[in-house]
Amino acid sequence: MEQFEVHILGCGSALPTARHNSSSQIVRIGNELLMIDCGEGTQLQIRKAHQHFSRINHVFISHLHGDHCFGLIGMISTFGLLGRTMPLHIYAHKTLQTLLTPQLQYFCKGMKYEVIFHDINPDEQQTIYENNNISVTTIPLNHRIPCCGFLISEKPKKRHIIADMVEFYKIPIYARPKLREGEDYTTPDGETIPNERLTTAPDPSRSYAYCSDTKPMPEIISQIANIDLLYHEATFANKDKSRAEETYHSTAAQAATIANEAKVKRLVIGHFSSRYDNEETLLAEACEIFPATELASENKTIKI
Amino acid sequence: MEQFEVHILGCGSALPTARHNSSSQIVRIGNELLMIDCGEGTQLQIRKAHQHFSRINHVFISHLHGDHCFGLIGMISTFGLLGRTMPLHIYAHKTLQTLLTPQLQYFCKGMKYEVIFHDINPDEQQTIYENNNISVTTIPLNHRIPCCGFLISEKPKKRHIIADMVEFYKIPIYARPKLREGEDYTTPDGETIPNERLTTAPDPSRSYAYCSDTKPMPEIISQIANIDLLYHEATFANKDKSRAEETYHSTAAQAATIANEAKVKRLVIGHFSSRYDNEETLLAEACEIFPATELASENKTIKI
Repeated sequence: MEQFEVHILGCGSALPTARHNSSSQIVRIGNELLMIDCGEGTQLQIRKAHQHFSRINHVFISHLHGDHCFGLIGMISTFGLLGRTMPLHIYAHKTLQTLLTPQLQYFCKGMKYEVIFHDINPDEQQTIYENNNISVTTIPLNHRIPCCGFLISEKPKKRHIIADMVEFYKIPIYARPKLREGEDYTTPDGETIPNERLTTAPDPSRSYAYCSDTKPMPEIISQIANIDLLYHEATFANKDKSRAEETYHSTAAQAATIANEAKVKRLVIGHFSSRYDNEETLLAEACEIFPATELASENKTIKI
Repeated sequence: MEQFEVHILGCGSALPTARHNSSSQIVRIGNELLMIDCGEGTQLQIRKAHQHFSRINHVFISHLHGDHCFGLIGMISTFGLLGRTMPLHIYAHKTLQTLLTPQLQYFCKGMKYEVIFHDINPDEQQTIYENNNISVTTIPLNHRIPCCGFLISEKPKKRHIIADMVEFYKIPIYARPKLREGEDYTTPDGETIPNERLTTAPDPSRSYAYCSDTKPMPEIISQIANIDLLYHEATFANKDKSRAEETYHSTAAQAATIANEAKVKRLVIGHFSSRYDNEETLLAEACEIFPATELASENKTIKI
């Protein structure tokens, strides 16, 4: 199966610490790298992670708090210095374009590539990007400002041909793509061979959701039901639950409850408050509700 | 003597590397921290260096290339989240205010402290900040855009009282401050005691200059003559001298030549191009001309 993995570049929250960078991650699907959020220092994290700048063509920004977007101008500028020519697509609330445009005009004069802004409406489920293999859909969240998560889903895949059977029936090469799409085969003699004798089931279509920053949102459960991996913010521990409510964030237990109710396969929690010296308490509180939880950490790669 | 030291937060150049951060440093004089330049990731570097955010009240920006100022918005925003109330003074080309103001209005709404911009004219030697102990003067440089360095000089200090002599002449406490300023003392009998019998010479007034980014500028030599420490950019090695010329940068040898001709006591070179895996060649080329050269590196503290 094609690679589908999430590489965490930063999983801290608003205040920087020596342990955690601001929010950013790269989702790798085959050779394509999708970036989600781009806090300050993201370009340095990409360097340290030995990821390829040039393969990042799409950046999805959840919301316009600094720890999710202050790294954009530096990264865009660096892409320019590296001689990039491919356009860069940025999907974000429309205010981002208003704020970035004067900076681009001043700092990125003469750059050889285009930055293309795509305005997203974070209040609706919208498919904002798709290619042959995947689609990216917004997940409306509830934070202090307009905010959405992103559901990245593989499209249905093609069936696998059973080589021995294809040979047995001497099925010509030109006829094989149809088999992968599930069609039956009719021999020159007029005999119909049912598709299930010639192929096996396709690889499962995997999916990943990124939900940060947000209050716990039961409304998202149906949208993320049964997905393979959920990244959910878990800024606070139980003892700081009232602080989570005030700031429109989630506790680790609330993240786990969402994961549990949505019956996702695995949960990774992140966006940790700087008040904790480590996240063991957060992990323990989440695992009590949803055992298949792990902690995000800088440079961690999670395969889906 | 009061502490006077330079703490390097970043000494890379335009392209980030895993080894070097963007330009920024903190000059500590007693309890005051002056920041020079503020590239992306500076606030993280301050955290890692365990420097006190709250003591940074003055930020000097040499020029408006991203690697010298992209860290400002994140740092300002973090100061706000930490509940800062003291104003923050930023000394920079006036365009910075134009670019930062819309970002401050959007990202830093409700912040409890003021950001005060001071427009500097990088083409003239101007004293842009002073307090009881020091002054900061611009050093006109020659880069692709308006750019200046900064000369930080201690003011003349007071003489030291010789305790035994003051006791011998029974000089009352109220009369002693004048002695420290070099005045003679007249006894109640009308005898004049020359100051040099009562005091010893003051501590020397130290000085530090930051010159980055720039072509080699012989014009600065008189302004930085005999200073204690010079930080000079040395983006390139000799073999890339033509690239240095094209981009209005200096080689390590050119930086050393400036240091040598200005008869500074020590030179530290920085702003290294990302093309070098290490800076040993740059150091060797500089030391050949000016042996008292050292390499800048992240988290290095240089005492003056």
